[in-house]
Amino acid sequence: MIVALAGGVGGAKLAHGLARVLPPDALVIAVNTGDDFAHLGLHISPDLDSVMYKLAGINDTGRGWGVADESWAFMAALQRLGGETWFNLGDQDLATHVERTRRLGQGETLSAVTAALCRQLGIEHTIAPMSDDPVRTIVETVCGERLPFQDYFVRFGCAPEIAAITLDGVASAAPSPALWDALCHPGLAAVVICPSNPFVSIAPILALAPVAEFMADRPVPVIAVSPIIGGAAVKGPAAKMLAEMGLPVSATGIAAHYGGAIDALVIDAADAGLAPDIEAVGPRVLVAETLMRSAADE
Amino acid sequence: MIVALAGGVGGAKLAHGLARVLPPDALVIAVNTGDDFAHLGLHISPDLDSVMYKLAGINDTGRGWGVADESWAFMAALQRLGGETWFNLGDQDLATHVERTRRLGQGETLSAVTAALCRQLGIEHTIAPMSDDPVRTIVETVCGERLPFQDYFVRFGCAPEIAAITLDGVASAAPSPALWDALCHPGLAAVVICPSNPFVSIAPILALAPVAEFMADRPVPVIAVSPIIGGAAVKGPAAKMLAEMGLPVSATGIAAHYGGAIDALVIDAADAGLAPDIEAVGPRVLVAETLMRSAADE
Repeated sequence: MIVALAGGVGGAKLAHGLARVLPPDALVIAVNTGDDFAHLGLHISPDLDSVMYKLAGINDTGRGWGVADESWAFMAALQRLGGETWFNLGDQDLATHVERTRRLGQGETLSAVTAALCRQLGIEHTIAPMSDDPVRTIVETVCGERLPFQDYFVRFGCAPEIAAITLDGVASAAPSPALWDALCHPGLAAVVICPSNPFVSIAPILALAPVAEFMADRPVPVIAVSPIIGGAAVKGPAAKMLAEMGLPVSATGIAAHYGGAIDALVIDAADAGLAPDIEAVGPRVLVAETLMRSAADE
Repeated sequence: MIVALAGGVGGAKLAHGLARVLPPDALVIAVNTGDDFAHLGLHISPDLDSVMYKLAGINDTGRGWGVADESWAFMAALQRLGGETWFNLGDQDLATHVERTRRLGQGETLSAVTAALCRQLGIEHTIAPMSDDPVRTIVETVCGERLPFQDYFVRFGCAPEIAAITLDGVASAAPSPALWDALCHPGLAAVVICPSNPFVSIAPILALAPVAEFMADRPVPVIAVSPIIGGAAVKGPAAKMLAEMGLPVSATGIAAHYGGAIDALVIDAADAGLAPDIEAVGPRVLVAETLMRSAADE
């Protein structure tokens, strides 16, 4: 049993690679829900959707998010009606949000909804939300604002400088049953931290109290894959966040951030020279070609 | 001031014609909301939308409902997810339901939401829901079922035989402010009952207690346009309902249904021979070409 902790696009790619080499009963992909939000009355789970669309083979590879062959008639009509259009919702993607919201409204857990949607999309591996309880990532800016993550990420394009990131609700949130059962599985072999944003994709999962306790006394190796290659994030604001957190913008910064929480860090061949510095920080270094451009890379 | 009472497509056409000849401050179009329903967590107002799309000039003329140049990517994706697909929601149409639901959720009245949507769509005349309070048309079948109207109409294609129609909530529902203000307007000249279904489109409006009282002691003529031409409904189940109610399937049946509630009935030239029978029932008869195929007809 392998447990993969994942956020959005980068996490979805490695999760997809793991799903190609592991049978369905030997992998649980636990996905960040800290950037879930309510928008237009809909429950939107961006990271769950990224992983789900990827494993279903219906993700858009050009845009990097959402569904392939997407159309935007809803957004155009919403704009005509003067609605809120800062968050793009494709016509197909919208069906996911509407169906998820409908099922949640009937009292289903996010785990149950996710399992049902995955089943419909023909996904055999388990994709589970990190928690069925609401955890909301809030970006506190140096100007004193408290921005819900999607406002920071989409509305303001990650421009505000971060003072701190807080996770509303995390103290009382339980891991989802699938995540917790997998961590307690007698055949658990490793926890893989996908190359997702450490601060806003992985931190919320690791901050769940039972997960934190498990990781502090872990019986298996925890192996992270660096989302930073050659001093830059493959996608997203990880590099900017490292700098704002006062950490080196490199795989070394990732190692410093995770500290004793990981046993090994997979870094890109381009960063092989950083291995001694990283191993001085703590984790063992594994060097590989980590940029995922194809299914084989994944 | 003219008050037009309207349901869906037929009502929308006559309302559009009235809007072409009356200035915005001399017409209030009060629209049935008895067939409003909650579907997929969305508040759907089919008749309000039909009238709104028509007056905005964005209605689909071929299909007869919804928005022109509509696409269906949402529905296809919803089907892929195993969602409920018996009620068709176009990608553009969906924006109306999402935005309406969002605004209602923020505490706006249906009147305020409708006014805002109409303003965005460039509609200058007043389209008002008959009431801001929920009224729900229920079709009671001869088999003892109680079917919410859209189940009867869309899901079961009007097939069940009707024993009675009840209007849940109507006893405590108030007319919308725009409808009531128009009825109380010192310049009120007439109430026009559009050629909509008398049983499920017009009856809910007339059943609002203050409207019923107003109509019983009306200071102005009430003029209905027959939705039955040559023994058939132009569209929808009006003819089938007349038969199930034990009434003649003709303009005479419409006159018998409305009884003393109307002062005049506009019938089609094809039905001119029915005039003596109808005037024997009560209302004065006006004969015209009532089939609306063009804006000029309307």
